[in-house]
Amino acid sequence: MDNKENLQNKRIGIIGAGPSGLAQIRAFEALKERGENIPEIVCFEKQSNWGGMWNYSWRTGVGKYGEPIHGSMYKYLWSNGPKECLEFSDYSFDDHFEKAISSYPPRPVLFDYIEGRIKKSNAREYIRFDTTVRWVSYDEDTRKFTIVLDDLKINKTYSEEFDYLVVASGHFSTPNMPYFKGIETFSGNVMHAHDFRGADQFKDRNILLIGSSYSAEDIGIQCYKHGAASVTLSYRSNPIGHDWPQGIKEVPLVTHFDGDTAFFKDGTSEDYDAVIMCTGYQHKFPFLPDELRLKTKNNLYPDNLYKGIFYNNLPQLIYLGMQDQYYTFNMFDTQAWLARDFMMERLELPSEGERRVDIDTWLDRNSKLQSSFDDVDFQTYYIKDLLSFTDYPHFNLDKIAAMFKEWLQDKEENILTYRDKTYQSVVTGTMAEAHHTDWMDELDDSKERYLYGAEEEELIPE
Amino acid sequence: MDNKENLQNKRIGIIGAGPSGLAQIRAFEALKERGENIPEIVCFEKQSNWGGMWNYSWRTGVGKYGEPIHGSMYKYLWSNGPKECLEFSDYSFDDHFEKAISSYPPRPVLFDYIEGRIKKSNAREYIRFDTTVRWVSYDEDTRKFTIVLDDLKINKTYSEEFDYLVVASGHFSTPNMPYFKGIETFSGNVMHAHDFRGADQFKDRNILLIGSSYSAEDIGIQCYKHGAASVTLSYRSNPIGHDWPQGIKEVPLVTHFDGDTAFFKDGTSEDYDAVIMCTGYQHKFPFLPDELRLKTKNNLYPDNLYKGIFYNNLPQLIYLGMQDQYYTFNMFDTQAWLARDFMMERLELPSEGERRVDIDTWLDRNSKLQSSFDDVDFQTYYIKDLLSFTDYPHFNLDKIAAMFKEWLQDKEENILTYRDKTYQSVVTGTMAEAHHTDWMDELDDSKERYLYGAEEEELIPE
Repeated sequence: MDNKENLQNKRIGIIGAGPSGLAQIRAFEALKERGENIPEIVCFEKQSNWGGMWNYSWRTGVGKYGEPIHGSMYKYLWSNGPKECLEFSDYSFDDHFEKAISSYPPRPVLFDYIEGRIKKSNAREYIRFDTTVRWVSYDEDTRKFTIVLDDLKINKTYSEEFDYLVVASGHFSTPNMPYFKGIETFSGNVMHAHDFRGADQFKDRNILLIGSSYSAEDIGIQCYKHGAASVTLSYRSNPIGHDWPQGIKEVPLVTHFDGDTAFFKDGTSEDYDAVIMCTGYQHKFPFLPDELRLKTKNNLYPDNLYKGIFYNNLPQLIYLGMQDQYYTFNMFDTQAWLARDFMMERLELPSEGERRVDIDTWLDRNSKLQSSFDDVDFQTYYIKDLLSFTDYPHFNLDKIAAMFKEWLQDKEENILTYRDKTYQSVVTGTMAEAHHTDWMDELDDSKERYLYGAEEEELIPE
Repeated sequence: MDNKENLQNKRIGIIGAGPSGLAQIRAFEALKERGENIPEIVCFEKQSNWGGMWNYSWRTGVGKYGEPIHGSMYKYLWSNGPKECLEFSDYSFDDHFEKAISSYPPRPVLFDYIEGRIKKSNAREYIRFDTTVRWVSYDEDTRKFTIVLDDLKINKTYSEEFDYLVVASGHFSTPNMPYFKGIETFSGNVMHAHDFRGADQFKDRNILLIGSSYSAEDIGIQCYKHGAASVTLSYRSNPIGHDWPQGIKEVPLVTHFDGDTAFFKDGTSEDYDAVIMCTGYQHKFPFLPDELRLKTKNNLYPDNLYKGIFYNNLPQLIYLGMQDQYYTFNMFDTQAWLARDFMMERLELPSEGERRVDIDTWLDRNSKLQSSFDDVDFQTYYIKDLLSFTDYPHFNLDKIAAMFKEWLQDKEENILTYRDKTYQSVVTGTMAEAHHTDWMDELDDSKERYLYGAEEEELIPE
């Protein structure tokens, strides 16, 4: 049996058809297009459609089949980083839209772009939608994973065996929601950012957001934009520190609640109509035995993952996209390409001990990062390292790193206007167009409005 | 090896420490108190405390460990049936409170009562809290269940074997949430009754409740009581039909939404601030292979359960409390006592075929029920049947059935005052006291206020 036949008998299971899972499929499809034989691939997606976090649902809590809702996506979400920093190097924005667009598109536009690439292949055939993974076990003797699956549509369970398991289920789906004394006496809505579906219901309300990361920043300015009476951000260690407009302010951490009044560490207190906890997410893999679970907080280099993806104790178990993220789609791609080459038996991994040394080197570097700029450089360097092993189309990472730094400065300069800036593609050299409407004035996030906005309104008769 | 030794080697797994799971533990403890040997019992509870649905949490969505929230309990929930209809026959309200109380206590008082009985034993020692069941498999050869468990506190999985499995995980935890066209354009809060935590946030708001069962009725009047501007109940087939006060009304089913406007089957439409879907729950057992799953809608006699509890294809698998419920705690008790006697090998079941015939007889009777009174009689008759097999202290079921019918009439007479009525205990003969405050005027549901309310306020110096 030659190697190619052997490969064809291998089976690869992918959990999740979001950006990471789709990148993995796309990586194999790229080989197939070149006439190469690839193993059997099955991707399990618990939602009814692909796109992962970008597949917006109005639902909160659990979905129609009673499974925890995956998405944390909300209405009117616009990219919070330049699209030029996440562009696929094998499928540019120009390829997809055939015209220049702005640097900060809204969710439907980015969803369209993700889908555009994957629709060009037969990826859909690999994916079993409405299918959730209940339990995974690994047999040391056969070296195979047994996956217990649940077909939610027909309420039917079954098992299948795989040689490789790619976990691409994301890590912004399971809320981390701390308890604050007295919160149970707060009479208004108390929710996690995961369940936030849009700012409309907070019009004219005084809202308290607990947290100081992207969710707090973005939900805060969205509520401000859509008419909240006031927005208070409560931070644990350090404020975000932007030059906030009148109507948004930062205060130290909540100590406790008494009814609708929140008390803060600086001794102040205030009444609120709603509390949104922007307190982060848990890396949660309930379907894996704990010895195979990635156990980590959100950071740039989770421990126990060689090259950020291979589970060190068992590298046939691959995790994609588990890092805290400056880079997104293009990082998932480079990871998926590397994972593919390992599964194609083109890439041999060093010994477990050597892998451990490599991981430790990265962890050491990570521990020394001191600023956001350092963080950007670290992740840039990480992706460069991955790229050096694969044939994923190279792209100018130094230019992207520079864009990230400019973006950080744009936000500091003016958090309400940074999305009006434009950047240049490193893939095509195209300069982004300014959006037809300033972001603060743009209340419609539909694809139609975004792409054809101004004209269309004039063309459609009343 | 005599039978008693054999029993001691058996292991019983119970999923859930709510009223049904606790009833099962209590049933075995009752034997133990009499000096009998009982098998090893392990109860798995994913929450941090017992009480199941009665264990109120301010959380919605997922809990602190990222598991779907079990409870559908809300602030200010008062029993919606007379407590005399659910009294334990081996632990009366008099035993617990040592004085007469009203017929409709609030949640904290009922929780205290449930806990009171179970605290008298060593039940807590059998329960592993913060532990969720990930997967169950059954081995035909060894006739044992293997249960994969996840200790949420320490993020650790492990497996154990059991001879019997008692599923007492309830069926009012997984929302059934249908899609209505345009709901994604509704800008206010859209939630399922499962995530409703209290009426306060709906003060002065116009709210739409979809559904016509207990959740809709009770959340509707609670919002009315706590100051909602208006409450609209939208029914699928038939209205609840009470003589609603000004401010509550019933309309036919929603056809679609357009922004904040709901359109109804009768051609009318109206704007709302929030939508609460009181659209029921799914019987959901994600931890079981589908051939062991009870697949049923909510009804008085789910198919495939002999005597309403023994899974017909595999009677070592026992489901408690899976019926739609007039009777609650006392029905769970009679079920648990019968299950216990089977597991103690004191009760032999007929053949699978004979069991099937018995089930069919009950299903046939169930299909002929025409009114709420018929339903009450059916469930009364069912419990009588169970009681005839066990030594659970008998109680006057005919009197309880009569109380249920009176209760139905009380509600029809006046939905706002039915909770001010009083009933007589069939266990002790004690007549309930009228509550010190009319239900509509009582905005405090604490145990202290309930038990000592009026006096205490005078006693405590300012």
